[in-house]
Amino acid sequence: MLVGELGEEALLERMRLVFATASPGVLAGIGDDAAVTVPSPGKKIWTTDLLLEGVHFRKDWLSPAQLGRKSLAVNLSDLAAMGASPLYAMVLMACPADTSVEYIDELCQGIAGLGSATGVTVVGGDTARSPGPLFVGLSLCGAIPEGEAVLRSGARPGDRILVTGYLGSAAAGLWLLENEKNLEPFTELYRAFKEPEARLLAGKTARRLGATAMTDISDGLASDLSHICNKSSAGARIETGKLPLHDELKLAAQEFGLDMEDLALRGGEDYELLIIVSPERCNAISGEIKRQAGIPVTEVGEITTQASNILAVRPDGSEVAIGHGFDHFGADG
Amino acid sequence: MLVGELGEEALLERMRLVFATASPGVLAGIGDDAAVTVPSPGKKIWTTDLLLEGVHFRKDWLSPAQLGRKSLAVNLSDLAAMGASPLYAMVLMACPADTSVEYIDELCQGIAGLGSATGVTVVGGDTARSPGPLFVGLSLCGAIPEGEAVLRSGARPGDRILVTGYLGSAAAGLWLLENEKNLEPFTELYRAFKEPEARLLAGKTARRLGATAMTDISDGLASDLSHICNKSSAGARIETGKLPLHDELKLAAQEFGLDMEDLALRGGEDYELLIIVSPERCNAISGEIKRQAGIPVTEVGEITTQASNILAVRPDGSEVAIGHGFDHFGADG
Repeated sequence: MLVGELGEEALLERMRLVFATASPGVLAGIGDDAAVTVPSPGKKIWTTDLLLEGVHFRKDWLSPAQLGRKSLAVNLSDLAAMGASPLYAMVLMACPADTSVEYIDELCQGIAGLGSATGVTVVGGDTARSPGPLFVGLSLCGAIPEGEAVLRSGARPGDRILVTGYLGSAAAGLWLLENEKNLEPFTELYRAFKEPEARLLAGKTARRLGATAMTDISDGLASDLSHICNKSSAGARIETGKLPLHDELKLAAQEFGLDMEDLALRGGEDYELLIIVSPERCNAISGEIKRQAGIPVTEVGEITTQASNILAVRPDGSEVAIGHGFDHFGADG
Repeated sequence: MLVGELGEEALLERMRLVFATASPGVLAGIGDDAAVTVPSPGKKIWTTDLLLEGVHFRKDWLSPAQLGRKSLAVNLSDLAAMGASPLYAMVLMACPADTSVEYIDELCQGIAGLGSATGVTVVGGDTARSPGPLFVGLSLCGAIPEGEAVLRSGARPGDRILVTGYLGSAAAGLWLLENEKNLEPFTELYRAFKEPEARLLAGKTARRLGATAMTDISDGLASDLSHICNKSSAGARIETGKLPLHDELKLAAQEFGLDMEDLALRGGEDYELLIIVSPERCNAISGEIKRQAGIPVTEVGEITTQASNILAVRPDGSEVAIGHGFDHFGADG
């Protein structure tokens, strides 16, 4: 059956059924005018992100469940970057009339499945038939039970720059999809694009052990590092020889002539964490994240003074300015 | 300048600037990975609603500021129906590339203006260029500092049915717009459609004084009353002669042959409150809302047993079954 035949009220009811999970904190879930939850301790963390067909995804690139998971994961990644734990989500969907009802069910199940795995309860939802593309937007509330969120503004000259996981994988995966290459040898690259994982545990560990600044790498290392530098009034030096590159990225670069350095510096959507730490705590934080979250953590450079701008230093010693180092509208300048 | 020329990052920055209001509860607002707020007392209330161009509005019917206000008002109305006070909002927007930047600024200012008047701080936002229609979605968190939310499920046979304001006005206003009638004699009707007011104070007063059930009238009295009856396993009797009709509705009905009763029973988008109260408290609640909120409150019928279904009784004594009285998917049945 198609969404257009089902009607909006019935579509909303299907969303309600998928998201109707019992959660101890939820006194009334979806189905009244609004949901009611018990008070919970700690500072609250808020974020919202949308995925739009034709802009952020194509239906033939992501299964409906992958789209659902990704729409939650990109929001979870923002909470991870504060060192927060997720609590509640609200889901907005606008679906073309020719979307199958099964598609919507699977999309919602993708959200609910990742939600269940990460402690998220969906407490609100609305939907309408879209005269245009498919639109999925999520809003998320999380908490920091004790202590403070890690902001972008705390980096100090001399601090070390750590990144989790591998860089450039998602951008390479997207390139392979866009160029219709054989994906078989590159499962990790297209998985990085289709099924990004929010680094919630790494973020919490970094916060607990005293990271000075943090953000997630959604727009590419150069761009996201520039946000940290802007907010912290600092510069940075990245050693490109240290950038963590997956073996599949090296293989793809070789086979298709891709610029690995550019993908690692400017490729978006890896949803890894960029963690700034004092030199004294660098090894402890890096080691504890590896141990707790079981993911690679790599030191790729250091924070410098603002006057130094943001530089990438190549193994041969040559330097390139990366990132604009200022905000187009001056709000961060 | 058009949104398509500005780029997404710059568009997001404009949203940030409009919503960058200082609020004592907000430790970090829009501009980091996520916003941070202080803990606040009481149960939390969650709702989300979207407005889609071509489905919920047309750009030539609502000014951008009106669209912004309405997108917040329809969410506030859900909180009002729980007796809650709003706290934080998150805004998602997808804009066609040919939208002017001024349009988006005014839309955001509409949200921010009503937010400021009702105690809402916008703590999150995301935007993208839409290949289709304009999409505005809001998610809202509110609180009930003490006591319990008023759910749809508490109505008991014998309880009285109250409604705030006038019914059918917004539907008549929409009809006038759709049929391109002279709007001049009908300012209150099209205002009801373009600038609905969430009945926050009335909702809080009703909750404080012990209303047994409550919902907002967004789909029309018959439909919203059936939600109450479903959740409460009850029936209802509405006296159509008592339905509060604005003088302009009577005038429009006379001039254009509109069915006033049908508009009042089934017209949507009035965003008035449907308040169920025990007979003992009826006068006190009704009187206190009139005094506090300065709006009409009208007793229009009573809750009956489930077997009685939902009936509209005309002044001549004839009865009509209204509302389906059961949910299409059985979830409420």
